[in-house]
Amino acid sequence: MRIRGGDSSRLRRINLAETLRAVRGHGPIGLTDLARRASLSRPTVESLVEELLQTGWLRELPPESGQLGRPARLVRFRADAGHVLGVDIGSYTVRATVADLDGEVVATHAEPAGPSAGRAERLAAVRTAAGAALAAAGVDPGRVSAVCLGTTGVVTPAGVVKLSVGLPEWTGLDLAGEFAADFGCPVLVENDCNLAALAERWNGVARGVDDVVFVLSGVRTGAGILIRGELLRGGRGGAGEIGALPLVGWHRAPSHLAGYPGLPEEAPPEGVAAYVLAQARRGDPAARWAVEQYAHDLAEGIAALVLTVDPDLVVLGGGVSRSADVLLDPLRRHLDPLCLEPPAVAISTLGDQAVVLGAVRHALDHVDARLYDIDSPLPQPALSPATTNP
Amino acid sequence: MRIRGGDSSRLRRINLAETLRAVRGHGPIGLTDLARRASLSRPTVESLVEELLQTGWLRELPPESGQLGRPARLVRFRADAGHVLGVDIGSYTVRATVADLDGEVVATHAEPAGPSAGRAERLAAVRTAAGAALAAAGVDPGRVSAVCLGTTGVVTPAGVVKLSVGLPEWTGLDLAGEFAADFGCPVLVENDCNLAALAERWNGVARGVDDVVFVLSGVRTGAGILIRGELLRGGRGGAGEIGALPLVGWHRAPSHLAGYPGLPEEAPPEGVAAYVLAQARRGDPAARWAVEQYAHDLAEGIAALVLTVDPDLVVLGGGVSRSADVLLDPLRRHLDPLCLEPPAVAISTLGDQAVVLGAVRHALDHVDARLYDIDSPLPQPALSPATTNP
Repeated sequence: MRIRGGDSSRLRRINLAETLRAVRGHGPIGLTDLARRASLSRPTVESLVEELLQTGWLRELPPESGQLGRPARLVRFRADAGHVLGVDIGSYTVRATVADLDGEVVATHAEPAGPSAGRAERLAAVRTAAGAALAAAGVDPGRVSAVCLGTTGVVTPAGVVKLSVGLPEWTGLDLAGEFAADFGCPVLVENDCNLAALAERWNGVARGVDDVVFVLSGVRTGAGILIRGELLRGGRGGAGEIGALPLVGWHRAPSHLAGYPGLPEEAPPEGVAAYVLAQARRGDPAARWAVEQYAHDLAEGIAALVLTVDPDLVVLGGGVSRSADVLLDPLRRHLDPLCLEPPAVAISTLGDQAVVLGAVRHALDHVDARLYDIDSPLPQPALSPATTNP
Repeated sequence: MRIRGGDSSRLRRINLAETLRAVRGHGPIGLTDLARRASLSRPTVESLVEELLQTGWLRELPPESGQLGRPARLVRFRADAGHVLGVDIGSYTVRATVADLDGEVVATHAEPAGPSAGRAERLAAVRTAAGAALAAAGVDPGRVSAVCLGTTGVVTPAGVVKLSVGLPEWTGLDLAGEFAADFGCPVLVENDCNLAALAERWNGVARGVDDVVFVLSGVRTGAGILIRGELLRGGRGGAGEIGALPLVGWHRAPSHLAGYPGLPEEAPPEGVAAYVLAQARRGDPAARWAVEQYAHDLAEGIAALVLTVDPDLVVLGGGVSRSADVLLDPLRRHLDPLCLEPPAVAISTLGDQAVVLGAVRHALDHVDARLYDIDSPLPQPALSPATTNP
């Protein structure tokens, strides 16, 4: 970071960013602590905190008694200074979640939209889910700080679904453009497996792990990759699309589960994986065989990912994550011999919430990037009138 | 970067790093320019430059007449303030290259060591090559600033070859430890394909490209990956090892070339790829068929890499790079249908120098990291007595 002498407004913006960074994700913090964390002088921090209290990014808490009896001023980041909306556009369900700026979920809504729903019907389900979640959270769509839509398929940086095998009617759809007028904020679009990977690192089994391969398995099979803690999108949004390689068995993997002869006719497709895994756990030989074949094909694609990026952790998520105890053994049996070293494998703890929570995380990252962007003015918080500082 | 008030020696180290950064890779530069590039005041830069001239990191050039007739002081980084040594431990040849700190090659030596050479013989060839290159450069082994050894196989961060298929006797070898006493500086060990990828981005066809897959093809097939301009090593050094997956044809790819019936008996194994490609270029049908099958198998592994990381560019290097014109068409024919989008493919322009130049680059990066490391004292340059500043 280069600081030019004389450019005091730029220096102030830099110091505001440092102060926000120091207070963000921290609980209540005293001004002395804050000055130390931000590496700023106490008088500078006092002036910056005053501005941030005025703007509404910080809230002052009742003072605590200091060691020498002098009450210490306490401030904290206002989690309610804005809200983000995350949406998971699934093949069976559209999930929308509203969270505050601390990432606490405020409201959530799930709207059914099956594989036969066309483009218009699925878009309508997205609007219904988003509207219902925002209404339940009491957040006006015009006051959302950032929106992220998670979708299957290869997504361009501009938010266009370039190619979707899972939802063919989605190919070519400008999702970002479609929803641009619905909200008074940027609408980000991201591949669903990528978002699930982010979520697992944020709040799931990959917490603190930098190089992660997330494998979504169940109705579809897909992957999201984190390298050094950041999403690997690839030059054309195609990272993690190993399932497109016919040599590795992902294209046929779900058919082993769907072909299990004991499947009840009324079983919903999105529940097939869980059903067959449950039957296998009960010892049913045909279900065990189906799981064995599924694990074989799943292992081939995972091995290709592992032998390419050598991640610290492979996370298995999606429809299989609730019953993964019966999948893990056969998977290891097929996966380990294909790899140079057996990779660490963990089962998602976020299950069917992984994508929508990843969308929330991605939207929050966007909000933070704006707070810390020293080349732009400090954004205004989107406080609802009821919660404005007195 | 956080700067504490009062810690003036730390601030000076930070400013020395900024000054070195500004002058590094630049030609002769005036102090006014330097102050602007380093975002420092002119008097500060004058004092820093004085220290760097004294230490020997900078050299003063004859002053240039300024616009107003006042002569402007000119300085530049001293490329001879140190030397690095890069070594490519190949299956047939050990190449050693000495370069100055600008990366200019000063001397190079190639020492034969065939596949049948045992561990001791190959290590001796490394010492011979390194010694000959250093002697030709007039650089004492004790004054080298950094050494990087490139080797086939999976390498641990500590410089141990964990697994080598290409040189089986290499598996388990502590290469860094083996050479620690030979030089008065750190000895880095890195996978050869990784180094070739670095070299292509530094001085080859991948200049300025951030996400690169380098594919070494010829006697062996291997890959090195750059993500955001940095090496992707993987958690256990196993990134790019897609060749270990039997499903993709890299393990059998070279056999198509080696099995070409028109191969002269005396053809050296390391020249097979070039020979068959040359015959194919002349229109020999059996050679064309061998190349076709080779391209088919090569494409499978490249597709797995492309569908995992979606690079901006695939670089083909190694034994095929001299005659790649006849390989590119069949490769595209087999590769493109396996990928979601045809990737950009380029032929290495560095050929058999890629690995050793990558080793030089990696060693230079290590030197730079020490120059810019504000948590350590500024290192001393390793000037030979003859070139010390007067």
